[in-house]
Amino acid sequence: MPVRPEEVLDRIRSLGFSGPDAELLADHFLDAERRGKTGHGLARVEWLATLPDLDPAARPELVSAAPGFEHWDGRGTLGYLTLAAICAHLVADPPWPAKVVTAAHCFPTGMLGYWVRWLAEAGLAALLTATSPPRLAHPGGGAALVGTIPLAIGIPSSGGDPIVADVSMAKATYGAVLAGEAAPEELVPFGADQAHKSFALALGLQLLVQAAAGADGYGAFLVALAPEFDPVPDLRARAAGLRLPGDS
Amino acid sequence: MPVRPEEVLDRIRSLGFSGPDAELLADHFLDAERRGKTGHGLARVEWLATLPDLDPAARPELVSAAPGFEHWDGRGTLGYLTLAAICAHLVADPPWPAKVVTAAHCFPTGMLGYWVRWLAEAGLAALLTATSPPRLAHPGGGAALVGTIPLAIGIPSSGGDPIVADVSMAKATYGAVLAGEAAPEELVPFGADQAHKSFALALGLQLLVQAAAGADGYGAFLVALAPEFDPVPDLRARAAGLRLPGDS
Repeated sequence: MPVRPEEVLDRIRSLGFSGPDAELLADHFLDAERRGKTGHGLARVEWLATLPDLDPAARPELVSAAPGFEHWDGRGTLGYLTLAAICAHLVADPPWPAKVVTAAHCFPTGMLGYWVRWLAEAGLAALLTATSPPRLAHPGGGAALVGTIPLAIGIPSSGGDPIVADVSMAKATYGAVLAGEAAPEELVPFGADQAHKSFALALGLQLLVQAAAGADGYGAFLVALAPEFDPVPDLRARAAGLRLPGDS
Repeated sequence: MPVRPEEVLDRIRSLGFSGPDAELLADHFLDAERRGKTGHGLARVEWLATLPDLDPAARPELVSAAPGFEHWDGRGTLGYLTLAAICAHLVADPPWPAKVVTAAHCFPTGMLGYWVRWLAEAGLAALLTATSPPRLAHPGGGAALVGTIPLAIGIPSSGGDPIVADVSMAKATYGAVLAGEAAPEELVPFGADQAHKSFALALGLQLLVQAAAGADGYGAFLVALAPEFDPVPDLRARAAGLRLPGDS
């Protein structure tokens, strides 16, 4: 029986998550529902309960830092909460001008647009990708080699309406399959006769995460920067009212 | 009359480019031909001669630097030569562990895979994107809002065979149109009924470059990192001989 919006918070608390963590997770799932990304929404509450190593008391760790760089390890925390810790840290101590953040053992990461929107609303531009179990085969055949691998980009706007692009390289996301909105056969790179393009992007992004954070488990790769310029208002003016990525 | 490979260097020198610059440009165009990216190949030699502000004596400038960050300005240099200066600088003084590099007035940038391959062969993982004149409209209609916007990712390999993904968000690149291999009507986001995905990526990447480097002219955004891990050999083993992005 599907989880109803008003019971999300209690259901998450019943899994053992504390106040702020439970609220963050509930906000993420409800935001995904509102944006029509139901595969990242309420269906995930029941899915969480099925994870064998769920440890609501785990905390991510900032393992190493250098100017313009941070490396985190989820240490058994849900990827959502690791990314939340990273975003909160970036907002509290903004990069000047840029920071690369890598995270090992960071899964699941949910709807990546949520995290770059958080940063964009705090005035930071960001690019974020993350790995996940291999589900997409090479367009030439063979076994699944890459995850559905999303790439999200958030750009703040002085107009208050950031652009949030959040694109999975798969025709259908695993979340959509989980939500019963897509068939498993749609877990292929998107683009039909140009699927080699999205496969190449998925492979390149997956290897970038793995080169930085390892292939032991899943990870994330984020670049955040304090923008020097404010290109969104002009773009929105030229788009003349067309719905742009991230608009509700 | 098309430029023949053996006359490329002389033709470029005749435009006023000095020894190393001419050799770099010739190598770029010939490499594009070898990889079948003819739109970035010999057709560009004649195109260079048509550029109104071509200044073979111009030099790019490293305008500002901070730990993990550099900002360059092309200062009237061809984008190819600005990216060459950036790559040479990164290889001479490798980031530890990561560096974000932005470049203003950096056009044209050619086949982006060329630059990330350079870095990968020197042991650096990299992600590179660049802006160009608006040629792609929103899938919902209207005027051209974004460039064809490539994203290139290079990952070194201890096996000596890096992965180089280099994907334009357009069904056909402007270079392919220039080379007579595609029709102007193919200057649309790739992906057919999922073209909103590649449009969103193009828009997000374009705004990322503009937020960092401005919208006055065209620019580039690069992240380079010294990889902690070596994921390519295992991936190649799992791919069992399939041709992977960047393989010749």
